[in-house]
Amino acid sequence: MASHTSFDWLKISPAMPNEQIRHAALQHQAQLTKPPGALGRLEEIAVQLAALQHTLHPSVDHVQISIFAADHGVATENISAFPQAVTTEMIRNFTAGGAAINVLARTLSAQLEVINLGTVHSTDTLTNVRHYHLGAGTANFMHTAAMNENQLAAALNAGSTSVEQARANNQQLLIAGEMGIGNTTSATALACLLLNLPPAQVAGAGSGLDSKGIAHKINVIERALTLHRSHTHSSLEALRRVGGFEIAALTGAYIRGAQLGLPLLIDGFISTVAALTAEQICMDSRNWFIYAHQSAEPGHAHVLKALDAIPLLDLSMRLGEGSGAAVAVNLLRMACRLHNEMATFSTAHVSTRKQ
Amino acid sequence: MASHTSFDWLKISPAMPNEQIRHAALQHQAQLTKPPGALGRLEEIAVQLAALQHTLHPSVDHVQISIFAADHGVATENISAFPQAVTTEMIRNFTAGGAAINVLARTLSAQLEVINLGTVHSTDTLTNVRHYHLGAGTANFMHTAAMNENQLAAALNAGSTSVEQARANNQQLLIAGEMGIGNTTSATALACLLLNLPPAQVAGAGSGLDSKGIAHKINVIERALTLHRSHTHSSLEALRRVGGFEIAALTGAYIRGAQLGLPLLIDGFISTVAALTAEQICMDSRNWFIYAHQSAEPGHAHVLKALDAIPLLDLSMRLGEGSGAAVAVNLLRMACRLHNEMATFSTAHVSTRKQ
Repeated sequence: MASHTSFDWLKISPAMPNEQIRHAALQHQAQLTKPPGALGRLEEIAVQLAALQHTLHPSVDHVQISIFAADHGVATENISAFPQAVTTEMIRNFTAGGAAINVLARTLSAQLEVINLGTVHSTDTLTNVRHYHLGAGTANFMHTAAMNENQLAAALNAGSTSVEQARANNQQLLIAGEMGIGNTTSATALACLLLNLPPAQVAGAGSGLDSKGIAHKINVIERALTLHRSHTHSSLEALRRVGGFEIAALTGAYIRGAQLGLPLLIDGFISTVAALTAEQICMDSRNWFIYAHQSAEPGHAHVLKALDAIPLLDLSMRLGEGSGAAVAVNLLRMACRLHNEMATFSTAHVSTRKQ
Repeated sequence: MASHTSFDWLKISPAMPNEQIRHAALQHQAQLTKPPGALGRLEEIAVQLAALQHTLHPSVDHVQISIFAADHGVATENISAFPQAVTTEMIRNFTAGGAAINVLARTLSAQLEVINLGTVHSTDTLTNVRHYHLGAGTANFMHTAAMNENQLAAALNAGSTSVEQARANNQQLLIAGEMGIGNTTSATALACLLLNLPPAQVAGAGSGLDSKGIAHKINVIERALTLHRSHTHSSLEALRRVGGFEIAALTGAYIRGAQLGLPLLIDGFISTVAALTAEQICMDSRNWFIYAHQSAEPGHAHVLKALDAIPLLDLSMRLGEGSGAAVAVNLLRMACRLHNEMATFSTAHVSTRKQ
């Protein structure tokens, strides 16, 4: 078990974007037949991807979507609008192709994989799921740490494994999605620990709590923070104490993606909290994160602000599964194709601006 | 010329969305395996398209992009960062496939057509352009009305013709784009007349004016409004006096699209001013307009507010050509496919929310 309990790989430095290519890509954008800057964030994205992919011709044709699912002990505190059985029911739905992320993956011709890190109900009969069996969900962090060290290391490794496979399969972009009843409660507690924010400022409806349900959720998180705060001396320890298997897997995926130089498209609230955790554990991993969308979950805005991140889309989505990130993939693809295929002022014989 | 000078067709009532199907589509959305509302605006778009297309299975696979180009007499007032020759140079670029809208149309497999309504320099040698020859650009509205009645009627008809052809070709969505050096000045003057706003509040950089250039542009528009305001007793007359051939064509396209029940995806500032004009001329046409993106041109926000419209995207784009609308097409397509292909709670055996 030595390799499973090792956190040493988290200390590997992230890859670095190529600043020379970034500069050349910026210069190329200025020559395309449009007023400088007129494609707005699509220009920025193309230039960023050029720097990340070390090429003047960036491309995100090949996209992997990895959905990490797990159950949460804290779900017994009645903090979700949906019963805990939905975690495994949705895993089945993912394998049957009926969930939102399946539809989106099909429209993108993206590779989709489903990883069950540990749920209350078994999904072992499903052959197209990668199983980790880290436990029947995390422990209830109202009473104890959500994970022990072995579980945390294995969950981080699960994320890393998906990234390494994506790299081996020449994927150009990774979306790490999540599914787990109770995981906005876990992510909110984690964000509050990492950013020293009060739960009342971060907590939201999740999958659909009413105001009474949100008040209860805030109370649950406040009590959990009282239990854990004084024992939490690192981001990794915060993740172990109030995180979830899937949130740790996302964190591992983001850190490993940055180390291997694989651009990561970050989904909504839970994914962004994992990205925050990744950034706090492994500085400079942030270079590899592209924030896809602003979630309707109110805490998302606070975490994005702390990360100084402005997402591409704001469509009032709050589904998880990586769905908001999947919706943004076409923006990245269009940004690349505009960068690669537009004519320049000189080749198209178009006059440049007046001096 | 009787048919060309007739404006009677503008009085035809727009088609009506199907409210029964809207209701059924809303009910269908509530059964899909996601928390109700979790797909945010993608749900709204799918339901809207269902009502507009009179089907529970909406689709925008078949998209036509019509780019209307023209020159503006007011360009002689030095209100653009680019020389007037760029209008025809860009028409050539459109036909050669090198402009942003060409790249976007290719990624969407959309049908692209280019219409030259009247430019200073001829593009007659280009066979893949529809030519109208309404004049060598509009007249300079600093001194006289931009168009005479025949020109206005013909420009409105040109837009209508593109819609009728799109309909005949079973297109499911139309994007009307524009190209014309000086057309943010024209659109700003028109918006100020229609909404009774001061030019200083609406005018912006267009294709890239500096602050001195913007101040000059505001002054030009203020003087034009002084000349025309007291003679302008209808939206149509405002369009004739300070509009442009391509802005009138967009207006005609939007009105005819609403009459024929063809959903219209509205691009940025200039397109939105044309949509405002269309709505003022032909009430209820607005049902057929879907606003694609928030332009970086500052006046856009004012016009959108007057229309009570919140666009789908905000990517700081300000290119025109229909490019922002083209970028939004994939959102509509994804919205439709999610609506059509997701499993329901009952078919996927997923538990619904707690009671």
